[in-house]
Amino acid sequence: MTLQSGQLGGPVLTVGSVALDSVRTPFGEVEEELGGAACYASVSASFFTPARIVAVIGEDFPDEHIARIGERGIDLAGLQREPGKTFRWSGYYEYDLNQAHTVKTELNVFEGFRPDLPADYRATPYVFLANIDPALQLSVLDQIRRPKLVACDTMNYWLENARDTVLEVLARCDIALMNEAEARELVGMPNLISCARQILNYGPGVVIIKKGEHGSMMLTRDSYFTAPGYPLEEVKDPTGAGDSFAGGLMGYLARCGETDDSTVRRAIICGTVMASFAVEDFSLDRLFRLTHDEIAERYHDIVAMMRVEAM
Amino acid sequence: MTLQSGQLGGPVLTVGSVALDSVRTPFGEVEEELGGAACYASVSASFFTPARIVAVIGEDFPDEHIARIGERGIDLAGLQREPGKTFRWSGYYEYDLNQAHTVKTELNVFEGFRPDLPADYRATPYVFLANIDPALQLSVLDQIRRPKLVACDTMNYWLENARDTVLEVLARCDIALMNEAEARELVGMPNLISCARQILNYGPGVVIIKKGEHGSMMLTRDSYFTAPGYPLEEVKDPTGAGDSFAGGLMGYLARCGETDDSTVRRAIICGTVMASFAVEDFSLDRLFRLTHDEIAERYHDIVAMMRVEAM
Repeated sequence: MTLQSGQLGGPVLTVGSVALDSVRTPFGEVEEELGGAACYASVSASFFTPARIVAVIGEDFPDEHIARIGERGIDLAGLQREPGKTFRWSGYYEYDLNQAHTVKTELNVFEGFRPDLPADYRATPYVFLANIDPALQLSVLDQIRRPKLVACDTMNYWLENARDTVLEVLARCDIALMNEAEARELVGMPNLISCARQILNYGPGVVIIKKGEHGSMMLTRDSYFTAPGYPLEEVKDPTGAGDSFAGGLMGYLARCGETDDSTVRRAIICGTVMASFAVEDFSLDRLFRLTHDEIAERYHDIVAMMRVEAM
Repeated sequence: MTLQSGQLGGPVLTVGSVALDSVRTPFGEVEEELGGAACYASVSASFFTPARIVAVIGEDFPDEHIARIGERGIDLAGLQREPGKTFRWSGYYEYDLNQAHTVKTELNVFEGFRPDLPADYRATPYVFLANIDPALQLSVLDQIRRPKLVACDTMNYWLENARDTVLEVLARCDIALMNEAEARELVGMPNLISCARQILNYGPGVVIIKKGEHGSMMLTRDSYFTAPGYPLEEVKDPTGAGDSFAGGLMGYLARCGETDDSTVRRAIICGTVMASFAVEDFSLDRLFRLTHDEIAERYHDIVAMMRVEAM
């Protein structure tokens, strides 16, 4: 596949948050910069396929951010502007960049977010339900007609407060994405493989567990795949890594139009690549200056890192 | 390669501890069972190539243990029996099986251990210096004539108390093996890749960092390789995983007689396989009942887990 040929696949719709993030890491600090799961995922997907977004912003959301997302060719018809302030998250990371410490979450307009899909979004074939209230994830699925592929993410808050609804979402998804701790919390077992196997029983045909710098693993009913993290020597800000991963994964799957084992494996490497770029700078800065050549080169590097012959 | 054809490579010498381990995990408990780095490594290597051991035991060391090691065809001419009691380690693991908690270490005869290589060991081509006082590791290197390949392990105690001597050992080794925490402690940097790169500057041409359930990574001056952990659903006792890894690695390298990048990668998978079996039961029980077919099958499974095509 040559990425340079532009956006060729079926569109990917991401539903989730658009935020203004204030983040401090040992390597720097930003205030009220562009963030949010739906931003990272759709910008990431846009390198592979047309992307659409359903999210909410407040009256204070800077036009320059909308312009930058628009420059990636992302369809913003589903970006609702509501009275009030934009969702804000502030947090910090210490040297263990796997662990985000939240200082403050101001939901603002995100609190009343009710995803309302524009009519021409309802036939979107590829849907990524980023981490939002699982009741809203269900309402999106109710609005979508026969999607080809649905992936969902979640977080510990929903596992603790709306576990049954999370299970309803999982039963309607093809790909469940979550991190190690979430998988263990959802299933209640210490062994990650056992957890992944149990999550398959909840419905999805593919479970992908993200392990931060340790990469990710995929389990299906008849295949197991592990992808390493890309060996970065400089990580400036891990915010958005998981959503960039999801965007690369979904974008690649949409572009290929296939969901067989080999394609999903390649899509996971694309997700790994996008996550590895996202964390090289604050906010979406690195993604906004990313090229298709850089994506292809890093993909090639990761495949080379994994190469091993028969005994 | 067909393992069934027996032990065909140059011999591997392991210098390290032979111990009586008392271990408790959430899955069971054993008292004063066979253990020690040199045991795990040489039994593991013996599936690939002839193995020799240099270690010390006390008067109380059970003959049945010697018999079981001997049944693996391991040359025991270098196993010194000294007056006093055998080295004992007792410890436990909680659900985080990556973390050993030491209850008691009784050095006993191990305290006075001075590796004295039998004359016909001095030309051994493959040498694994398991975790012992780095001054003793150096004395072994002084006794060995022109080894083809030397690998060394270490631990936090020596990094804190004999760092300069550890660096002297590293300067004389081809392969440095250590775990994540040790690499970070040795170099004093948080980023693992930066640490591995710095360790190459200390001398070895290959650095292998063990990451427990997350597998391992290898860095050389022009190659980077990552191997996943084997996805076990039942780990009974992680004791000896790292040494079984080292034994599989060295055994395979010795059997191949090559140390090029492709061979080292395959050797790392052999190490991964041997570690994954070792942890399936307490002490060396699983290794003692392991077959060549099982090794080949698990190697094949791991390669399948890593398979991914070009974009």
